[in-house]
Amino acid sequence: MSDDANTETLELAGAVLDRDRRALAKAITLVESTRSDHRLQAEVLMETLLPHSGQAVRLGVTGTPGVGKSTFINRFGTQLLADGLRLAVLAVDPSSRTTGGSILGDKTRMPDLAGHGDVFVRPSPSGGISGGVALRTRDALVVCEAAGFDTVIVETVGVGQSETAVAGLTDLFLLLVAPGGGDDLQGIKRGVLELADVVAINKADGELVDLARRTAADYQSALRLVRPKRPELPTSVVTCSALTGDGLGDLRTLLWRIHRRLSESGALVRLRSQQAVEQLETEVRSLLYHRSSRNDRFRRLQAELQTDVAEGRISVSAAARRLADAALPPS
Amino acid sequence: MSDDANTETLELAGAVLDRDRRALAKAITLVESTRSDHRLQAEVLMETLLPHSGQAVRLGVTGTPGVGKSTFINRFGTQLLADGLRLAVLAVDPSSRTTGGSILGDKTRMPDLAGHGDVFVRPSPSGGISGGVALRTRDALVVCEAAGFDTVIVETVGVGQSETAVAGLTDLFLLLVAPGGGDDLQGIKRGVLELADVVAINKADGELVDLARRTAADYQSALRLVRPKRPELPTSVVTCSALTGDGLGDLRTLLWRIHRRLSESGALVRLRSQQAVEQLETEVRSLLYHRSSRNDRFRRLQAELQTDVAEGRISVSAAARRLADAALPPS
Repeated sequence: MSDDANTETLELAGAVLDRDRRALAKAITLVESTRSDHRLQAEVLMETLLPHSGQAVRLGVTGTPGVGKSTFINRFGTQLLADGLRLAVLAVDPSSRTTGGSILGDKTRMPDLAGHGDVFVRPSPSGGISGGVALRTRDALVVCEAAGFDTVIVETVGVGQSETAVAGLTDLFLLLVAPGGGDDLQGIKRGVLELADVVAINKADGELVDLARRTAADYQSALRLVRPKRPELPTSVVTCSALTGDGLGDLRTLLWRIHRRLSESGALVRLRSQQAVEQLETEVRSLLYHRSSRNDRFRRLQAELQTDVAEGRISVSAAARRLADAALPPS
Repeated sequence: MSDDANTETLELAGAVLDRDRRALAKAITLVESTRSDHRLQAEVLMETLLPHSGQAVRLGVTGTPGVGKSTFINRFGTQLLADGLRLAVLAVDPSSRTTGGSILGDKTRMPDLAGHGDVFVRPSPSGGISGGVALRTRDALVVCEAAGFDTVIVETVGVGQSETAVAGLTDLFLLLVAPGGGDDLQGIKRGVLELADVVAINKADGELVDLARRTAADYQSALRLVRPKRPELPTSVVTCSALTGDGLGDLRTLLWRIHRRLSESGALVRLRSQQAVEQLETEVRSLLYHRSSRNDRFRRLQAELQTDVAEGRISVSAAARRLADAALPPS
């Protein structure tokens, strides 16, 4: 990196720490970039910002389409602002890679937050295969913390493995569910219930209040059948309404109380360290695989062997060894 | 490989196809070996046996300790033998790597199966980091099919990711659960419920019959809250007793009916192809990572960077890039 680029990057870091919004946006664009010169600048930036990060409540939020996620974040966020907190909302939407954007980029879906000085809303990064979306979101989260945001909501639309990735970036994970039950399938992806610290049945207003309560009871029962996520903190199930605001105050109190407990017991520090180490391994595995996949010979062999194992002409173990040999000969 | 070794391997394959038990045991030892000369022989063996495999019902079975898994397999297996089926039982127990063996190796825990001519019980492979336990179990499964076993039970003790791995090897996945409910935590690992095609509440005998029925109802309700594993085949919940044999006949009918449906609709062929392609990618990722980890410089750098990311001195993205660079420089 040139001295100029270095100086520019350090100035950018300074502006982020001074809470300059344009610098914040520019810094996140930098950490999301896949250009190799940008990668080096991003590393200098992150190194400068890291010591100033870590103070935020990192909250993951997910829910199936139609559950009212945007309305929820809009209303819940407004309440946080009223409490004097500064809120950043980051979105993780792996589908935006292929669609080239998603509804998550549309800030107008959170009308009370858009344009507010203490709010920063960032749509999902799109494009590029090197480095996962989760990794870039982790960097963006650090940048937001360095810019003084004390709450970061990482929102996901629940495609593929995105919930697991978001749970690996955040302190707490909130699952939003719509009222319904009995034979009325919720369509919640299997596995997501397992990640939740809190399940909130939204839309508990008007005629749906009773149904929401029954749904909450159903989830409470279902959760009793599995080992708790954190033995000392069983998953809570609550009802709320993003429309009327009912229950949002209690939900806020509950989430922050859990966070304080994790923080005071030292569990939060351990959790974040463990998340970082686990994400490091995941990312190294991905990088090695993606770098190998850039090689034409590897890709051709891979396509061939995929067909062969699918049709039972070669064992998976033999095929895996041949592919690994093509990328990285055994020592 | 020498001509002699090649001839020997082809003879071994022939003996497996002739259902020679000693050859079967020897062949599995070969596919489990990590010695490089054995790997080549194993590949020749697998290539010869693969066309003769695929006809078995591949059944994954898991359950928490104390649920009566051995008693269940013993009794359920006896019933299969009475129906004229030949049964192989393979165990996947990642913990045996460190303990150097496990209870799964103890054939006496299935007294009615041990020594029976139509049964083959194989404990979990132990030791070795190259090639996952799941991969070697897949090869062992193919060898058993080639030796004419028409049912292969792959049993797992539920440590770490073993259930997911077993679900990726088998056609059907059976979760055994003990009666209990309400606030009585079952201790079932989160995520396992999601993999099950059938949940069987065992020990539904004597005083526990009613509790087992209520437990079944609880699981039925819990499963309604998540998206079904296969839209066309909702997960079934049944009760049974491995002690008295109650319900085992119905369970057998249910499992084989599901299998027939999958087979007739073409879903089974698609499932197995997809499993093979997915396992190929997983294994290539693992092999690349493990091969990289064999390098001293990589390991030292890794240990250093793990501490650094855990303590927030370097971003995960920068650390991941440095580690990947050490193993496989970017092209």
